[in-house]
Amino acid sequence: MQDFNVTPYDVEGKVDYDELVKRFGVSIIDNAMEERIKAIAGDEHFLLRRKIFFSHRDLGWLLDQYEKGKKFYVYTGIAPSGTMTIAHLLPFTMALWLQEKFGADVYIQIPDEEKFLTKKDPCLTLEKINGFAHEDALSIAALGFDPKKTKFYIDTENANTLYKQAIRVAKHITFSQTKDAFGFGNDTNIGALFYTSLQAVGSFLKSAIDGRNVPCLVPLGIDQDVHFRLARDVTEKIGYYKPAIMHSKFMPGLKGNPKMSASDPDNTIYLSDSRDTVTKKVNRAITGQQSTAELQKKYGGDPEKCAVCQYYKYFFEPSDEKLAKIFAAERDGSMLAGEHKADLAKRINAMLDEHRKRMEALRGRMDEFMLKD
Amino acid sequence: MQDFNVTPYDVEGKVDYDELVKRFGVSIIDNAMEERIKAIAGDEHFLLRRKIFFSHRDLGWLLDQYEKGKKFYVYTGIAPSGTMTIAHLLPFTMALWLQEKFGADVYIQIPDEEKFLTKKDPCLTLEKINGFAHEDALSIAALGFDPKKTKFYIDTENANTLYKQAIRVAKHITFSQTKDAFGFGNDTNIGALFYTSLQAVGSFLKSAIDGRNVPCLVPLGIDQDVHFRLARDVTEKIGYYKPAIMHSKFMPGLKGNPKMSASDPDNTIYLSDSRDTVTKKVNRAITGQQSTAELQKKYGGDPEKCAVCQYYKYFFEPSDEKLAKIFAAERDGSMLAGEHKADLAKRINAMLDEHRKRMEALRGRMDEFMLKD
Repeated sequence: MQDFNVTPYDVEGKVDYDELVKRFGVSIIDNAMEERIKAIAGDEHFLLRRKIFFSHRDLGWLLDQYEKGKKFYVYTGIAPSGTMTIAHLLPFTMALWLQEKFGADVYIQIPDEEKFLTKKDPCLTLEKINGFAHEDALSIAALGFDPKKTKFYIDTENANTLYKQAIRVAKHITFSQTKDAFGFGNDTNIGALFYTSLQAVGSFLKSAIDGRNVPCLVPLGIDQDVHFRLARDVTEKIGYYKPAIMHSKFMPGLKGNPKMSASDPDNTIYLSDSRDTVTKKVNRAITGQQSTAELQKKYGGDPEKCAVCQYYKYFFEPSDEKLAKIFAAERDGSMLAGEHKADLAKRINAMLDEHRKRMEALRGRMDEFMLKD
Repeated sequence: MQDFNVTPYDVEGKVDYDELVKRFGVSIIDNAMEERIKAIAGDEHFLLRRKIFFSHRDLGWLLDQYEKGKKFYVYTGIAPSGTMTIAHLLPFTMALWLQEKFGADVYIQIPDEEKFLTKKDPCLTLEKINGFAHEDALSIAALGFDPKKTKFYIDTENANTLYKQAIRVAKHITFSQTKDAFGFGNDTNIGALFYTSLQAVGSFLKSAIDGRNVPCLVPLGIDQDVHFRLARDVTEKIGYYKPAIMHSKFMPGLKGNPKMSASDPDNTIYLSDSRDTVTKKVNRAITGQQSTAELQKKYGGDPEKCAVCQYYKYFFEPSDEKLAKIFAAERDGSMLAGEHKADLAKRINAMLDEHRKRMEALRGRMDEFMLKD
């Protein structure tokens, strides 16, 4: 009996990550691996230190290659469905760090057909999703990617490059395999069936373009791993290295659901949320605190159950020392929900303001980031 | 029990076209329809007169539209697998006539991924098939198409245009439907499953490009009809006219098999065959004649069983009067196999020589025929 379930289309129940690692057959990023990354990078990232990026495939092999002088590139992406959320930034934050510390080229897929093919919502037209795709690319570029080392591609606009690679992949994947991997059935549409082959392309696209085999590292949410379980085998069959993978946990929702979902506004901070909306949403977030200020002062709360504390941990407090103080204050009752939330809302708004400023500065200049067919 | 079977991937047994019309639920092009086409075109074509194009879907509706002033465009194509055969020319011969007589724009799809996805042959690489695709486009253009009214597209090179239309189609076709229509199974690869949505695109591509609904007529071999049984429903669902269809019978093979197949050299005349090869192949063709010249002179033969007579009928004798003489001479024994074959080989070689000359004259000038993404 499974008390939780993780697929690219749904995350249900309370996710047990240790159990998930076994289920998916991936490896934990242990302390030795973390130290090794730190030693090579000459720096560390709290997303690794805090085990938010917690598991991998073939990361040891990738680092071996790197130490032998064979640089890797990074591939990740986002399926646009509207405005991006803070949770969506996790893989891009890691990709940016890898670009800065390892000099990695970064390929970013924006598959504007994915939600069109897998969602029934008649308002999600291709034209609308394509608009989201461009806005997402701008949002991601604004994190600080180097245009000389970054290539965005949008599936319906870069199909000349993608389709001929995707059919190479598709030839090696049967209906049965997608059925087993994604839970597809006889009533699944043939576009949704085919789509995984487009997602696979990024894991060898730089190799195909450069005409030489380049190792690839894919940072992603662990719900996307299944695409690469299929892709890794095929990538090798068609003559390229299997991509290495780094998996992140899910950023929890404000209301306490296990994965912040873009389709659930109350659980989510959108990058486009106004200052007031952010403040309201954070004020309504669940905390691990007691039901009254008196009880909280007396008994303290549980930061692991507190969405506010988790936001600090995932994004808004890079210093472990300061994070420990925040968690301790929650635990010992010395910090009450009100001041706690006010501080978080302030930090989120500061981040969003800065991000939107950077977006506007880049608007109209995205051409240098886009893959040319 | 079915004593014959017709799919896009295989034609088995002796095809009973009357039975096929019932099985596929299409309509016969009867004399009244043939007369109507003749009246509107102000001319006739022996491929219609001889019932080689013998059945249709919605042709009456298409002519109604035409008479109301709404011009149609023509869509057809070929999946490249090597050099083209004479049999491959049937739909293009009809398309050219429709361009000349009805002023129709012609869209020609060259799906260079189709055989790659559906054949196991490891030598059929995408690169090789793409080379065939360009040679096929040149071959077809050399039939005399007007570059101002003709657009060729090659799937892997025009994917920017095609993919975003194909996913619109794909969203409405389930695995079950392709299973029923094409006999696909759990072991079919997801590229082959998806492919039918690319073949469907041509039936509304001009409408999508022009941004207005343009009726479409698709001349094709009846083995391809199944793609359009799926496509016609979807085309209407996404807001375009259902394409009208005209089906041709299969040109028989030289050795008497029901469909001349490009993968069976002895049964087939390739457009690239040398004069000697043509002569040899025709000399080895089956005829409807008796086993010796004496018996033939005495009893005569059967032109319906004679590959040589059928070649005259399908291609090499446009005059019905002259064809009747050829058939009569076979029937009454006055024409012997040797002179019969020598004359056909001469005609085929004259046609191929002329065609190759036209191809060389067009080589390097195909750019004006290709669809721009």
